[in-house]
Amino acid sequence: MRPSGRDLSEMRPVSIETGVTKHAEGSCMIRMGDTHVLCTATLEDRVPPFIKGSGLGWVTAEYGMLPRSTTSRMRREAAAGKQGGRTVEIQRLIGRSLRAGVDRVALGERQITVDCDVIQADGGTRCASITGGWVALRLAVNKLIKAGDVISDPLLDPVAAVSCGIYAGQPVLDLDYPEDSEAGVDGNFVMLGGGRLIEVQMSAEGSTFSREQLDELMELAAKGVGELAAMQRAATSA
Amino acid sequence: MRPSGRDLSEMRPVSIETGVTKHAEGSCMIRMGDTHVLCTATLEDRVPPFIKGSGLGWVTAEYGMLPRSTTSRMRREAAAGKQGGRTVEIQRLIGRSLRAGVDRVALGERQITVDCDVIQADGGTRCASITGGWVALRLAVNKLIKAGDVISDPLLDPVAAVSCGIYAGQPVLDLDYPEDSEAGVDGNFVMLGGGRLIEVQMSAEGSTFSREQLDELMELAAKGVGELAAMQRAATSA
Amino acid sequence: MRPSGRDLSEMRPVSIETGVTKHAEGSCMIRMGDTHVLCTATLEDRVPPFIKGSGLGWVTAEYGMLPRSTTSRMRREAAAGKQGGRTVEIQRLIGRSLRAGVDRVALGERQITVDCDVIQADGGTRCASITGGWVALRLAVNKLIKAGDVISDPLLDPVAAVSCGIYAGQPVLDLDYPEDSEAGVDGNFVMLGGGRLIEVQMSAEGSTFSREQLDELMELAAKGVGELAAMQRAATSA
Amino acid sequence: MRPSGRDLSEMRPVSIETGVTKHAEGSCMIRMGDTHVLCTATLEDRVPPFIKGSGLGWVTAEYGMLPRSTTSRMRREAAAGKQGGRTVEIQRLIGRSLRAGVDRVALGERQITVDCDVIQADGGTRCASITGGWVALRLAVNKLIKAGDVISDPLLDPVAAVSCGIYAGQPVLDLDYPEDSEAGVDGNFVMLGGGRLIEVQMSAEGSTFSREQLDELMELAAKGVGELAAMQRAATSA
Amino acid sequence: MRPSGRDLSEMRPVSIETGVTKHAEGSCMIRMGDTHVLCTATLEDRVPPFIKGSGLGWVTAEYGMLPRSTTSRMRREAAAGKQGGRTVEIQRLIGRSLRAGVDRVALGERQITVDCDVIQADGGTRCASITGGWVALRLAVNKLIKAGDVISDPLLDPVAAVSCGIYAGQPVLDLDYPEDSEAGVDGNFVMLGGGRLIEVQMSAEGSTFSREQLDELMELAAKGVGELAAMQRAATSA
Amino acid sequence: MRPSGRDLSEMRPVSIETGVTKHAEGSCMIRMGDTHVLCTATLEDRVPPFIKGSGLGWVTAEYGMLPRSTTSRMRREAAAGKQGGRTVEIQRLIGRSLRAGVDRVALGERQITVDCDVIQADGGTRCASITGGWVALRLAVNKLIKAGDVISDPLLDPVAAVSCGIYAGQPVLDLDYPEDSEAGVDGNFVMLGGGRLIEVQMSAEGSTFSREQLDELMELAAKGVGELAAMQRAATSA
Repeated sequence: MRPSGRDLSEMRPVSIETGVTKHAEGSCMIRMGDTHVLCTATLEDRVPPFIKGSGLGWVTAEYGMLPRSTTSRMRREAAAGKQGGRTVEIQRLIGRSLRAGVDRVALGERQITVDCDVIQADGGTRCASITGGWVALRLAVNKLIKAGDVISDPLLDPVAAVSCGIYAGQPVLDLDYPEDSEAGVDGNFVMLGGGRLIEVQMSAEGSTFSREQLDELMELAAKGVGELAAMQRAATSA
Repeated sequence: MRPSGRDLSEMRPVSIETGVTKHAEGSCMIRMGDTHVLCTATLEDRVPPFIKGSGLGWVTAEYGMLPRSTTSRMRREAAAGKQGGRTVEIQRLIGRSLRAGVDRVALGERQITVDCDVIQADGGTRCASITGGWVALRLAVNKLIKAGDVISDPLLDPVAAVSCGIYAGQPVLDLDYPEDSEAGVDGNFVMLGGGRLIEVQMSAEGSTFSREQLDELMELAAKGVGELAAMQRAATSA
Repeated sequence: MRPSGRDLSEMRPVSIETGVTKHAEGSCMIRMGDTHVLCTATLEDRVPPFIKGSGLGWVTAEYGMLPRSTTSRMRREAAAGKQGGRTVEIQRLIGRSLRAGVDRVALGERQITVDCDVIQADGGTRCASITGGWVALRLAVNKLIKAGDVISDPLLDPVAAVSCGIYAGQPVLDLDYPEDSEAGVDGNFVMLGGGRLIEVQMSAEGSTFSREQLDELMELAAKGVGELAAMQRAATSA
Repeated sequence: MRPSGRDLSEMRPVSIETGVTKHAEGSCMIRMGDTHVLCTATLEDRVPPFIKGSGLGWVTAEYGMLPRSTTSRMRREAAAGKQGGRTVEIQRLIGRSLRAGVDRVALGERQITVDCDVIQADGGTRCASITGGWVALRLAVNKLIKAGDVISDPLLDPVAAVSCGIYAGQPVLDLDYPEDSEAGVDGNFVMLGGGRLIEVQMSAEGSTFSREQLDELMELAAKGVGELAAMQRAATSA
Repeated sequence: MRPSGRDLSEMRPVSIETGVTKHAEGSCMIRMGDTHVLCTATLEDRVPPFIKGSGLGWVTAEYGMLPRSTTSRMRREAAAGKQGGRTVEIQRLIGRSLRAGVDRVALGERQITVDCDVIQADGGTRCASITGGWVALRLAVNKLIKAGDVISDPLLDPVAAVSCGIYAGQPVLDLDYPEDSEAGVDGNFVMLGGGRLIEVQMSAEGSTFSREQLDELMELAAKGVGELAAMQRAATSA
Repeated sequence: MRPSGRDLSEMRPVSIETGVTKHAEGSCMIRMGDTHVLCTATLEDRVPPFIKGSGLGWVTAEYGMLPRSTTSRMRREAAAGKQGGRTVEIQRLIGRSLRAGVDRVALGERQITVDCDVIQADGGTRCASITGGWVALRLAVNKLIKAGDVISDPLLDPVAAVSCGIYAGQPVLDLDYPEDSEAGVDGNFVMLGGGRLIEVQMSAEGSTFSREQLDELMELAAKGVGELAAMQRAATSA
């Protein structure tokens, strides 16, 4: 029934390749099917003004799409002179999601910026960004730990995200672009590997949904996040 | 336990005053406690390029805060030269939410722009904007119906929104600003008056939540939306 | 002869409602006929860099129109990404006018920002902004006095403004929008309540005027400002 | 008493050199003392959208200052990414003033853009721009007449402008920069050569003025404009 | 003598991997040592307004760097709200260089946009962009040829570019970042594979150079371009 | 053969008039045929952040064109809200070129900003800007020397620039606008008066060139720069 032939609760093949750029303190290329996102984590010894002197750390994120990551070419945001509303919304979500999995006291007064740049898009780029972003963050924090710059680990459970939606009347996991453009209801669940919720964003465009449907979608998401968390752990355990 | 002394499931006093500006096709001032939002609906006989010729209508929204609607003065976005990320995110949410309650075929090829301007803010401005925005929209559509410009009513059930969150460990309905700034988990539910869901946005900042907690919050939201929908119907039945 | 049936030297009904928002140090809604402007005054303990350390205070103003304050919807300036030339010109006029009535030594090194937001427009919004802006300013200064933060009152005579113009060949006071769009000559007089001039801005668009006409217009303006000053005093005397 | 030793009613030496650039349809360098402004008029066979098809012509103006036209270097507006409020205000004034002296029916559906660029500034740049701008406009219109493109002359009396103010308690004509920075009251009068008024802009900064003072300033201005108009006529009669 | 131990006339190892993204009509990842650039070519059936109806084609380019492609993180240009001067300069160079190798009549009225996005930077990104950009262009044109959309091949000789400079007093080929930041004289040569010149950009920063040195650098460049052209041909011959 | 009747190696008549504005520390109007550029040098006792405390001086440049310096009117960059790519590229070139002739240690920790504003354009504006810019710089430095603010002269040989190109198959010196718009190959040479090279920028648009042609162009350029340097010395020796 799904264009890709996948089962309703089947994610696309996922791979996480770490250490893909030599400059960043942490980096990975995450591939969820044909969606490929390059995630890097940059470590800096300064924090935003609003927490200066608080002893707390900060994690923030930026998101971008290469102009031809999409089927038809998008206008380059730098050339357009501003980040679009969708971009801003997504990078705020990534930052908020990652921070939910960070002990900011343990991190200490330093900032980690996670950049998520979409190399190729086929749906689900924000979820791939969160999941891959956590891997880059984990690798950067590992450096801090090895260097003895932090004492207790500021990261516990992985943060991962997956999309779900109602496609052709059925709840499905991990929508690809053809499904995404047809689904009347879809959204994203961000969770800790252990299953606690960080963010639920479910929206209907020209449609509505019931609480029962929301429950079914949440079941699918929990399954997906469980699988992703296992891959995140595997990719970052050396 | 709540700073305002309200019960956990008690909304602030709500009033909806219609016809507050003489130029707009529909308008209201919605007051949810000390949060006051002026909502106007503007009717135009043109649609955005991407649906030109489709026969479908369009509903969109813009959101703004007066500089001194807040405790300390905010920078005027027009002077800053751009709408901030939060503004863009909110106005996209308002537009999407209202469209979920519109039969765009019945509306016909015309556009309604709903402007939501916050006169005074005390938490929950985006929910007040959606709820009041629907009232302005309803009044503008009533004009179309009276003029015979549409045949079947493009609006059915009211669209309303309410915030919920976990405050001091307890699920509470309709957070005011003091609660909102303390709550580790909070979000918004947009629903039809009949209870079907349009948008769920629940986020944790530096915290997480369980599925049971999400269920409790959804119960509260359903209660709140039911009450708001009754007020919306009362305000727009002439 | 006037579309509204008013006498040549008759202003529209004016009302000034104070204390309309709970956050601002001073606020009022001024209504001159169908022109409604919300004015707030914000008090801050900092001054612009160019007077830092001088011991002098500063008063500045910002102006905006809600998108649907006008007959047809205007583009939101925040969305357009800049304040238009007309907006900038008006807010500079408001700031300059209010400063002319302030003893900046007595005010001391602090800043008051007056925001004038047009809720509904029917001509004369800049005059209403100055007149209402002074009321908000007065109320904020009253707080300073009550708190003992200033010793001598930095405000003396009220600052008020009114428009005049030549409509259908006749000098008229306080133009509403239908008159304003027809008048070949029109402008604004800003004065102290006692009659001394602060700003005269009279312009002809595709027309010219004589010194005698300017004199007649000034007579009308003096009458109007006298009436406005009485209302300003009434609204701010507790 | 004046820093320059001039009489109260004495303008600075004025010269108008025409034909200073080979590309523009009309051009001049106007020098009022040490204030030097290059004015060019550009003729185009198109009009702004809002008068398309009306048969009417349009005259508009733009204003700029070279970064080092002033005592200390100003930031280049193109580099700053926008025209400041003062620039916008001035160019709107120049355009409005010139249009008051144009028969837009006789001009026919074409646009003339007058650019006024300040090469060296010593006070009174907006007045020099209007006076020199009219000369450039006159020369461009002369080309239209010679080419037979207009039948009746769309320009009649010259449009000229001069500043006045109250300096050291005395009304003075044509303020230079040292006077301008001291004067508590100053402004600009735009008139036709014959004496009728186009624009009066008199403002007090931290001060006020009486009607008698305004009358005295107007006397001075009329004298100044009379002299300027004679020079404009001399410069443009071939 | 060179930090990398390379001979004076030795380029870094170069690889060109084609077909790296599924959406673009042509794509490659070019690696010159640690400089990695993703190049995509987008084919569109429209041309810029200034050649509409001319029958001629157009090739243009855009350039960007991922924020953490560099040793320390650069600000994202989309977030900064504009492309910096260096970016604009580079993308103009890439476009001009590629067009020099295109028969625009044979291409016909269509546009090819080449996007060059730097994934990892270690000096010479503009040269890698031109060289890789030509490969992406070649692949996109191959599609046009296969589809029968062009009759004669609009591309002949490859366009390739390489940097040279004077490092530690010696002319060297293909500077990496450590060399580039030390060299007082450096620049880029863009040539056809056959050796004819397209662009010479040699600059000294706080230094100068002689004609003899320019000749030596040109010799090195010719050698480098010859090697690159062979690799370009190999990568695009199927 | 040249539209102007000049010999292949003949420059346009050049004049350099110094002291043209009273505010700038150094200024000149350079005229190369019908290309007229006003150059001013501004001296400031501060340097950009990246060299603060280094003891080194800085020289930078900005470039602009008056809207009607060209055959048809260009849009004013300040009104467009940004400097175009060509402007940015040119001003970077001017700054880099001038710095190559400056001993930044001898200059000491101060900044000189050279503004080059094109009053009238007929090709070769960037070369005229560099050549005239050096004259303004020389005059400003002379002031420093006279005042005893620098001990050893930070400027040695003049920096001058001239364009060359291949027009109608022939190498020509100092292209005017009609030649420039036809030439398939053209560029600029920046040199010290003594002949050493600072910058070579030769590009082909839709064409290519040989090393022999580059040599011929360089011969022409050396001749031109020699003549310009003599004029620069004459203009600045008092």
